[in-house]
Amino acid sequence: MYSFKNDYLDGGHPQILKNLLDTYNSQEDGYGEDIYSQKAKELLKSVIGYHNIDIHFISGGTLTNLLAISSFLKPHEAVISAFSGHIYVHETGAIEATGHKVIPIESKNGKLDPKSILRVLEDHHFEHMVKPKLIYISQSTEIGTIYSKKEIKELRAVCDSKNLLLYIDGARLGSALTSSLNDLTLCDIATYSDAFYIGGTKNGAMLGEALVICNSSLKEDFRYYIKQRGAMLAKGRVLGLQFLTLFEEGLFYELSRHGNEMAKKLQDGIVEHGYFLQFESYTNQIFPILPEKVLLILEEKYQFYRWETLDDDLTVIRLVCSWNTEEKYVDSFLKDLRAII
Amino acid sequence: MYSFKNDYLDGGHPQILKNLLDTYNSQEDGYGEDIYSQKAKELLKSVIGYHNIDIHFISGGTLTNLLAISSFLKPHEAVISAFSGHIYVHETGAIEATGHKVIPIESKNGKLDPKSILRVLEDHHFEHMVKPKLIYISQSTEIGTIYSKKEIKELRAVCDSKNLLLYIDGARLGSALTSSLNDLTLCDIATYSDAFYIGGTKNGAMLGEALVICNSSLKEDFRYYIKQRGAMLAKGRVLGLQFLTLFEEGLFYELSRHGNEMAKKLQDGIVEHGYFLQFESYTNQIFPILPEKVLLILEEKYQFYRWETLDDDLTVIRLVCSWNTEEKYVDSFLKDLRAII
Amino acid sequence: MYSFKNDYLDGGHPQILKNLLDTYNSQEDGYGEDIYSQKAKELLKSVIGYHNIDIHFISGGTLTNLLAISSFLKPHEAVISAFSGHIYVHETGAIEATGHKVIPIESKNGKLDPKSILRVLEDHHFEHMVKPKLIYISQSTEIGTIYSKKEIKELRAVCDSKNLLLYIDGARLGSALTSSLNDLTLCDIATYSDAFYIGGTKNGAMLGEALVICNSSLKEDFRYYIKQRGAMLAKGRVLGLQFLTLFEEGLFYELSRHGNEMAKKLQDGIVEHGYFLQFESYTNQIFPILPEKVLLILEEKYQFYRWETLDDDLTVIRLVCSWNTEEKYVDSFLKDLRAII
Amino acid sequence: MYSFKNDYLDGGHPQILKNLLDTYNSQEDGYGEDIYSQKAKELLKSVIGYHNIDIHFISGGTLTNLLAISSFLKPHEAVISAFSGHIYVHETGAIEATGHKVIPIESKNGKLDPKSILRVLEDHHFEHMVKPKLIYISQSTEIGTIYSKKEIKELRAVCDSKNLLLYIDGARLGSALTSSLNDLTLCDIATYSDAFYIGGTKNGAMLGEALVICNSSLKEDFRYYIKQRGAMLAKGRVLGLQFLTLFEEGLFYELSRHGNEMAKKLQDGIVEHGYFLQFESYTNQIFPILPEKVLLILEEKYQFYRWETLDDDLTVIRLVCSWNTEEKYVDSFLKDLRAII
Repeated sequence: MYSFKNDYLDGGHPQILKNLLDTYNSQEDGYGEDIYSQKAKELLKSVIGYHNIDIHFISGGTLTNLLAISSFLKPHEAVISAFSGHIYVHETGAIEATGHKVIPIESKNGKLDPKSILRVLEDHHFEHMVKPKLIYISQSTEIGTIYSKKEIKELRAVCDSKNLLLYIDGARLGSALTSSLNDLTLCDIATYSDAFYIGGTKNGAMLGEALVICNSSLKEDFRYYIKQRGAMLAKGRVLGLQFLTLFEEGLFYELSRHGNEMAKKLQDGIVEHGYFLQFESYTNQIFPILPEKVLLILEEKYQFYRWETLDDDLTVIRLVCSWNTEEKYVDSFLKDLRAII
Repeated sequence: MYSFKNDYLDGGHPQILKNLLDTYNSQEDGYGEDIYSQKAKELLKSVIGYHNIDIHFISGGTLTNLLAISSFLKPHEAVISAFSGHIYVHETGAIEATGHKVIPIESKNGKLDPKSILRVLEDHHFEHMVKPKLIYISQSTEIGTIYSKKEIKELRAVCDSKNLLLYIDGARLGSALTSSLNDLTLCDIATYSDAFYIGGTKNGAMLGEALVICNSSLKEDFRYYIKQRGAMLAKGRVLGLQFLTLFEEGLFYELSRHGNEMAKKLQDGIVEHGYFLQFESYTNQIFPILPEKVLLILEEKYQFYRWETLDDDLTVIRLVCSWNTEEKYVDSFLKDLRAII
Repeated sequence: MYSFKNDYLDGGHPQILKNLLDTYNSQEDGYGEDIYSQKAKELLKSVIGYHNIDIHFISGGTLTNLLAISSFLKPHEAVISAFSGHIYVHETGAIEATGHKVIPIESKNGKLDPKSILRVLEDHHFEHMVKPKLIYISQSTEIGTIYSKKEIKELRAVCDSKNLLLYIDGARLGSALTSSLNDLTLCDIATYSDAFYIGGTKNGAMLGEALVICNSSLKEDFRYYIKQRGAMLAKGRVLGLQFLTLFEEGLFYELSRHGNEMAKKLQDGIVEHGYFLQFESYTNQIFPILPEKVLLILEEKYQFYRWETLDDDLTVIRLVCSWNTEEKYVDSFLKDLRAII
Repeated sequence: MYSFKNDYLDGGHPQILKNLLDTYNSQEDGYGEDIYSQKAKELLKSVIGYHNIDIHFISGGTLTNLLAISSFLKPHEAVISAFSGHIYVHETGAIEATGHKVIPIESKNGKLDPKSILRVLEDHHFEHMVKPKLIYISQSTEIGTIYSKKEIKELRAVCDSKNLLLYIDGARLGSALTSSLNDLTLCDIATYSDAFYIGGTKNGAMLGEALVICNSSLKEDFRYYIKQRGAMLAKGRVLGLQFLTLFEEGLFYELSRHGNEMAKKLQDGIVEHGYFLQFESYTNQIFPILPEKVLLILEEKYQFYRWETLDDDLTVIRLVCSWNTEEKYVDSFLKDLRAII
C-alpha cells in the first residue's frame, strides 16, 4: 500500500538527520538560545528580507496557533476564521480553550474576503458581543487554494482600516510559495501580515514551525508565553538546526516544489483519463472526483481520504503529495487508474 | 569551556539519530498512531510490568505537566507542591495558566511528607478555598534527592485515605532509578502513583517524555486533551522511535548510570580535596561548597550554576553530569581543583 | 416616552422590596446559608415536585450560564447551541472564556431539533475536534417561541442515547410556563433536563436566577464553583428572599401571565389593524411587521427594537411586555397605531 | 444569640430599600446605563475629586477582584499578595482560575512593604518564571490594620520605578477611611493606586462594590470584560441607586464610623476588664485574647470567630462590628464579660 493521505507520513529529511548526528556532541545552551537556532533565525531574517522581526521555533502547528493567538489577544477579543479553518475545525477547540471565541464565516474556496469580514465587524458592535480582532487565514488553505498578492493586500487594507491583526497559518506555506500560481514572496507575507508561521513539519522537518512576528507591538515577552504554554523545548537546537538545514541552500523550496510537481502530474494524469476535479489545484493537494467502482479498486493499493460524497456514485477524494513522494508511485497510480475500464 | 550546567546540553544520542535516519522513508500514520510509537508503548508496558496503563509521548516536561494536571483536575481543585517544585518555580505559571492554584509547602530536601500535606488539607476545609486534590512530586527532586520506597508508600497512603492523586514528575527519573540509594522499580512507581512520566529529554533523547497514566479513571479521552493543548505531534513517530531506542536494550538505564557515576566521581574528588557539600548527592547533580577564589579560577575553564550564596566567601554551586559527560573533563576538573592552593 | 424595549426596565416588584425592608435587621449567615435562602429552596423544591435536586441562587443569567456550563464540562467538551442562542451571540464569549467551544447550528424558530444535533455528533467523531456534550436551549427562546413537551422529550431521548446533557436557560421561563401554548410543568422541566434555571430578573426580581441541578452527578462541590467565579453573594439573603416572595403565593406566575396577556393584547390589536406578524407569539415578546411611515410616528412616543429590516419599507420590530407593563400604554399604543393612516 | 461574626449579617440599609421602593416604577435602561448609575458615578467622581476616572458597579468583592485583575494583566503576568490576602486565601483560587499566579509573601500585620516586593522582583528575573506585575493590597487589611499615607506612597514609588500596578481591595475601605488612625482621603487612594474598589456590601449596601479605574491605560473596553465574566447586571440601577444613597449625604462615612466606634468601645471595655489584645485595632474588627473558660460562657449568648489558638487556654477571637451593630449588645457583652470571674 502506498499512501497519498497526507504530507506528514515520512520522517525527517535525511540531510536534517545527518546534521543532527554530526552536531549532537557539541554543548549548547538550552531553550532556543543555542548557536543553531541563532543562526537559523539570522538566516531566515535574510531570506525574508526583514531584520526587525522576531522568530521563534515551535514544535507543531496547533501549538504555534494557540500560542500566538492567545498571546496577541485580550480576553474579550475574538478570531475570524473560515468555517473550514484548521483552528475552527481540527484543533479540538484549542483557541477556545485559551478563552477566545472563533467566529466562523462562510468562504469561497477556503478563503476569506474583505466583504464577509466587514459584515462580521458590523454585527459585533457592542460589549454584549466579543470584539473581532484577528483574522486567521491559511496559505495554502485547507483545500489547497492560495491567496494572491492582490487578495492579501485587500485583507491588509481591511485590517489597517479596522485595527485588526492578520495572522497567517503557514503549515503549507512552502507549497504555496512554490505554486505555479503564486505571486507572493516571503517578504510580501511578512509585509502584509502581523505574524505568520513557516511550516517545517509538512515540508521535510521531523517537527517544527518558525513563527515570525512582524508587528513590533506583539513581540514583547513572547518567550514567557512560549514557556507558559509548554512550548519551549529544552533542546531548542533540534528545531533550530532543522530550519538551518532547510534554508541554508534552498532545500525548503526544493522539497515543496517536488510535492507540487508530483501533485500536478497526478492531477494532469487523472484529468487526461477523463475524470473531473472538484477544482483545479496548484499546490500539493488535489481533489479529483471518482466513481465508486474506481475507488474500490484503487483502495486496494493506495491510501487516500474520501473527502466528500457527491452522490450515490461519485466521491471527491483528496490526494496529497509531499517532498518525499516517489514519482514511480505517481506513475503506477495513473497506470492503475488507466487499467480500470 | 566545558559545561556542567545541566543535562540537556547535548543533542540526541547517536543511536537515536541513526534509527531515525534508517526509518525516515517508511510511511507511517500520524499523531502517535505509527508503528514505532505502538511498539514503544508495548515495550514500556513490559518494562514497567503493567499492561492496563496508558502511555502518551509528549515533547517536553512543562507540556506534560500542564497537560496531565489540567486534564486530571476539576476547576476548583488544586495541586500541592514543594516551594522548590518545578511547576511552582520554573514553569512560568503554566499550571495556574490552566486555572489551577498550586499550593506551595516548605519541604526538607525538596521532598514532601505526609504531615505537611495533612496540614494543608486541614486548612482547606470549605468552599471559600480551593480543594487540594493532586500531590506533585519529582523523582529525583530539583535538588537531586530521591524518595525511598517507604516514603512513596506513605504518600500513597495519604492519597488513598484523603482521596488525592499522586503525580510524579520524572524529568530525571532515570537518574533516580539508577541511583545507588534507590530501592524503587519502575513497577513500584506505577503501583504507587496515579500518573508519572519518564523523562527522555534529560537522558539521551532529543526531546520527549513518556506520560504513564496508571489510574484508569484518568485515561478517558486523553488524546483530546493532548490535541487541545497543541501537544500532539503530527510525526509522533519521532517520539516513539526515541523511546523504542532507549528501552529496547536498556540504553536508558545505561545512560543514567553514566551520569550518576560521573557525578559521584566529581563529588568524591571534591570531598577528597577537602571541600564540603551542601548535602551528599546520589544522583547526577551535586552541590559542593567552594570559596570565591576557587570559583573564579574554575570559571575560567568550566561552566556551572552558582546555586546559593552562603556568606561573603562561600558559595554552593551545582554541577550536573549527563549521559554524555566525558570522564576526561571530570578528571581535568578535579586536577584543576587540586592545583588551586 | 413609554418603552417596550425589554422586560428588565423596571426595578424590583414592590412586594419584594417591602419584604427586604421588613427583614433587614435580622442577623443572618452569609453566602446563601441564611434562613430565607433555605426556605426559598425548600419552597421551590415543593413547587417543582422534586426534593433530590440542588438549587443555587445566582445574580444574573450570563453568570448562571457560564458557571453551570463550565462546571459541568471537561476541558475538551463543547456546547451545542442555536446560532440565535444567547450564549452564542450576546454573552461576549463568556462560555469560550471558560475554555469551551460553542458549536452553533441553524434552527427553525430559535429551537433545536434532534436531527441537527445528531448531524453535529456525526461530524465530531475524533480527537481532532471538540466533543459535543451539552445541549443548550432556552425556554422561551430568544424569539419568544416555546418547546412543547413532545419536543423536550425528543431532545431528552437524544441526550440519553448519546450521553449528552440538556441545559435549559430559563431567563424567561415564567413567560413560557404561563403561555397559552404551554404544556410543560416545572416538574417536567426538571424531569427532562439535567439542569435549568428559573429567571427572576425578567420576572419581578431586582436580580437573581435560581439554578436547579437535577442530575446528581453534576451537584458535587458546586458551591466551590460559585465562589470561584465570584458568584457567591455575601448577603445571599437578598436573592433567597426574592425567590421566597415570588413563589410563596404564586406571584411569579401572576407576573408572567400579566406580561403574556399584555403582549397578546398588543399583538391582537396590531393584527386587527391589518398588519402582519413575523410569526404569531404566545409569550411576552411579539414581532409585528410595520412600514417605515408608521414606525417613525410610533417612535416619537414609544421605545422598541427594530429587529430585522425586510425591505425598503417593512421592518420587523420587537415589542416586549413585562410584569409591570401598564395596560393603559398598550391601549394608547394601539390607539396611536390606529390613528396613523 | 447576638452575632459579632462579620459585617454582612444584616440586609441593606433601610434608606437604600426605601429608595429602591420609591423608584421601582421608573423605566430605565439596562446594564448600568440607567440614570441612577450615571448619577452615582458623577457623585463618586466629585467625592473622590477626579473626573478622569472610570467607575463600574459590580455585585461582589471576589467578582470585582477577578474581573479587574484578569483584565489588567497579560497571561504571563502575576499578582503579589500577602499570604493573608483575601485573593490568596479565601476566594477559591478565583485569580488562578483566570490564569494568573498569585505570589504570596510573608507580611507584618497583613501589610506589604517595598522591601519584600523588591525581593520578589529580583527572584523573578527571566522567562521561566511568571512576571510580577500587580501589587494587591487591602485597605483595611484582613486583620483590620490600615496603611498610612506614607506607606501607600512608598508602595506607589516601587510601582513607578518597577512598572507595576497597585490595586487596592476596598471591601472595608469605609472602615479604613473613618479610622482614628487614618490619614488618607479617597482622593489619595485614587492618586496613588491604579485601581481600587469602594466596598458597599460590608457597609450598608445589600450588594455592590464600586470599582474605580484611575490608570487610563486600564480603562479601554472594560464593559466587555464585565459582560464576559457575567458581572453586568441587567438591572444595574439596583447597584447605582445604592451607591447614590450611600454617598449623597455622607451615609457611607456615617455607617463606617459607627462600626469603628462600636468596635473601639468593645475593645476598650475588654482591655479594661484586664484582657490582652493580639494587637490594638483602629477599625471595625478587634482581636482580643480570652481564656477558654470565658469563651465558653460568652459563646452561650454571642457568636464570633475563634481566630487563632495560642495555647491550651488562650485563644484570639475576632469580634466584628458593623453599621448596624446595636450599642446595647456591645454593652451587654461587656457586662457579661465582667460578670465572669
